[in-house]
Amino acid sequence: MNYQRFFEEAIDQLHAERRYRVFADLERIVGRFPRAIYRANGQAQEITVWCSNDYLGMGQHPSVIGAFQNAAGQMGSGAGGTRNISGTNHPLVELEAELADLHGKESALVFTSGFVSNEASISTIARLLPNCLILSDELNHASMIEGVRRSGAEKKIFRHNDVAHLESLLQAAGRERAKLIVFESVYSMDGDIAPIAEIADLAEKYNAMTYIDEVHAVGMYGPRGGGITEREGLAHRIDIIEGTLAKAFGTLGGYISGPSAVIDAVRSYAPGFIFTTALPPAIAAASATSIRHLKSSQAERNAQQRQAEQAKHILSEAGLPVMPSVTHIVPLLVGDPELCKMASDRLLGVHGIYIQPINYPTVPRGTERLRITPTPFHDDALIETLRDALVETWNALGIPYRTSDQPSVAKSERIIPLLVPKSGG
Amino acid sequence: MNYQRFFEEAIDQLHAERRYRVFADLERIVGRFPRAIYRANGQAQEITVWCSNDYLGMGQHPSVIGAFQNAAGQMGSGAGGTRNISGTNHPLVELEAELADLHGKESALVFTSGFVSNEASISTIARLLPNCLILSDELNHASMIEGVRRSGAEKKIFRHNDVAHLESLLQAAGRERAKLIVFESVYSMDGDIAPIAEIADLAEKYNAMTYIDEVHAVGMYGPRGGGITEREGLAHRIDIIEGTLAKAFGTLGGYISGPSAVIDAVRSYAPGFIFTTALPPAIAAASATSIRHLKSSQAERNAQQRQAEQAKHILSEAGLPVMPSVTHIVPLLVGDPELCKMASDRLLGVHGIYIQPINYPTVPRGTERLRITPTPFHDDALIETLRDALVETWNALGIPYRTSDQPSVAKSERIIPLLVPKSGG
Ligand SMILES: Cc1ncc(COP(=O)(O)O)c(C=O)c1O
Ligand SMILES: Cc1ncc(COP(=O)(O)O)c(C=O)c1O
Repeated sequence: MNYQRFFEEAIDQLHAERRYRVFADLERIVGRFPRAIYRANGQAQEITVWCSNDYLGMGQHPSVIGAFQNAAGQMGSGAGGTRNISGTNHPLVELEAELADLHGKESALVFTSGFVSNEASISTIARLLPNCLILSDELNHASMIEGVRRSGAEKKIFRHNDVAHLESLLQAAGRERAKLIVFESVYSMDGDIAPIAEIADLAEKYNAMTYIDEVHAVGMYGPRGGGITEREGLAHRIDIIEGTLAKAFGTLGGYISGPSAVIDAVRSYAPGFIFTTALPPAIAAASATSIRHLKSSQAERNAQQRQAEQAKHILSEAGLPVMPSVTHIVPLLVGDPELCKMASDRLLGVHGIYIQPINYPTVPRGTERLRITPTPFHDDALIETLRDALVETWNALGIPYRTSDQPSVAKSERIIPLLVPKSGG
Repeated sequence: MNYQRFFEEAIDQLHAERRYRVFADLERIVGRFPRAIYRANGQAQEITVWCSNDYLGMGQHPSVIGAFQNAAGQMGSGAGGTRNISGTNHPLVELEAELADLHGKESALVFTSGFVSNEASISTIARLLPNCLILSDELNHASMIEGVRRSGAEKKIFRHNDVAHLESLLQAAGRERAKLIVFESVYSMDGDIAPIAEIADLAEKYNAMTYIDEVHAVGMYGPRGGGITEREGLAHRIDIIEGTLAKAFGTLGGYISGPSAVIDAVRSYAPGFIFTTALPPAIAAASATSIRHLKSSQAERNAQQRQAEQAKHILSEAGLPVMPSVTHIVPLLVGDPELCKMASDRLLGVHGIYIQPINYPTVPRGTERLRITPTPFHDDALIETLRDALVETWNALGIPYRTSDQPSVAKSERIIPLLVPKSGG
């Protein structure tokens, strides 16, 4: 038994499939977002980041950083314990109240990440319901899939955003059986949105519980940043709304919000919540500041929507294969893992533009892409620079431009159906 | 199907078993550690924390807070992405180098928590080995148990710290089968230490991989804070050393260190590492500062050891039932969940001393206890105040003092065997 060999073979396999990942070593520059210092081979270079999930640049907001520094100065750099054993810090208590209010729910519970919130909550909720059947969208994020697995409950996968398929599964299960529907609002790799109202209708008709992941929508949609459920006036029709503090809110952590009894049960039974150190007060205070800011300010949301539209428009006009997206996410089809990696490398090396290639298994084979995330700080001049760099790269590598059978962004709102689970990572 | 009912019943059950947990709302005060503001029923009160896992008070160290605030000011409050997609910040790269050096290993990998590091690493390592058998100490932490479960591998539980039992299981499995031994160095609820050298001998004899959790030892033992494995010169004999940044180092996050091939495989295959936002640069920078400080300074370790010994001595002298512990942890036996909760409430309400009760399932029924963690900042006067408060509480509630069949601390180094898995939370 040579242990080393198995780990080396696992790595070799990734190299062979061109899926081995090299992380870009970045140092973001406050006040000059989206600029960052990129380090490789002992050299440092300034670049523009075009693939951050700090969607609104709130991680650089003076009041957020101020709250962060302040809380650290007053309360220290860590929580010092689990939530139960001396780790529940006052800013965390305030943050949970802020989050419950954001979604109009009775309670909220904060976890160390969005990943942990999904894994711990879905598994715990399903385990507390007798003979629960989980109905899960086929494109759900890895963290939701882990939660479903960990629950040990029976699961049925419904075709992506396919309410007819979901209905047939609900019908087969019957009204009396416990059922939990888990899905996302904004799917982060394509930028499409779930038919939330129809899913809520079905949940009512067949008496199912609903759990929505709004990770890519909180802060960014709805008049107070409550996500797509807020924008569409549907928050009260979904039992559990899950979100992250690490994307639009610019910090770290995840949460669920919902009825007090459910939240209290997850709080009391989920190992992933109980047996781990609480988030530091500085993270909680910065998060609450960011959420409060985005509850009243529309400026960031408006500017982001405008720049995302602008980017889609300018790149499309140049004939670049912008995939249809009804949200802030701008995916650019490459369709080949090798070319996708080469395009990313060339953009970074030649143009100082960083866009991580998105390959299988994050997206299905054949739909490899560059996933672009314009923020309020990616102004029109930066978008034009991006367009020129992409055109140069597309020409240099011979990547196909938009073909006639690929609908232009303007024409389509539907997404090409995808076949295997995807997840952002 | 009334969903609400099941969650309410789950909560009711905890109330009935006196296991319902109420979190203490705390605000720690930098510069006055271990003092904190405690809020309840709309009132705020200053208290002394006696159960923090900020074991050395590093969460309050000026250079750690300085690094934290500085990095936030320069790089923002969040990482802005997963490790692969724009979230690998430069302080995190430096932190991983610092951790590899701490344990004398080729590589290290940082996770969002110690919990996630155990769950993700144990499950991934075991899955990459064909037909792996996991040998797991019966008192392993919940996060390790989750990792074992999630691996899907066959597991055998060995009796706590029982090398003869472990050997019989290894022997039965044979040299040729892949085997992973998972255990802790310091067990946090009793303060006892694993027979690491003997386990390493067995691993060699039967060709097993070894994985140790040093969460309650890193920073605190060994000339550079490399844990018990460093103190005993055994780090090179253990394959994977896991630790947390959230206890003695005073921040947030967890990690593994070990051979590059193993670390790279976990980095590339573990969903819990891949599909989640990276730790913020401020957390990474503060952690690295704390680790570097504790690599050269012995002052914190010496003072903590002294105060822990002092506390054991002073409480024992008063006849209080200090359970045998060979480490910095000072468990005080109560032996009844109701009394344990009442003692904790009285200490807080009457004496302004906060020690969370530790009840089943964190510890076995009948061994309910107060778990006291003296730090360098709990000086002799505070210890004496604590003793007086405990004596008053023991008398008021009629809790038994040390009995003749309970060995005094000085006499015993062995721990009463425990029967069900315990975990700190
Ligand atoms: C849909 C979805 N849910 C959950 C997560 C996890 O959130 P976090 O980064 O806070 O762990 C992510 C990505 O990171 C995601 O894309
Ligand atoms: C033995 C052990 N391992 C792991 C953990 C988890 O570490 P963290 O708090 O960093 O998640 C804990 C407690 O929190 C623990 O006691």
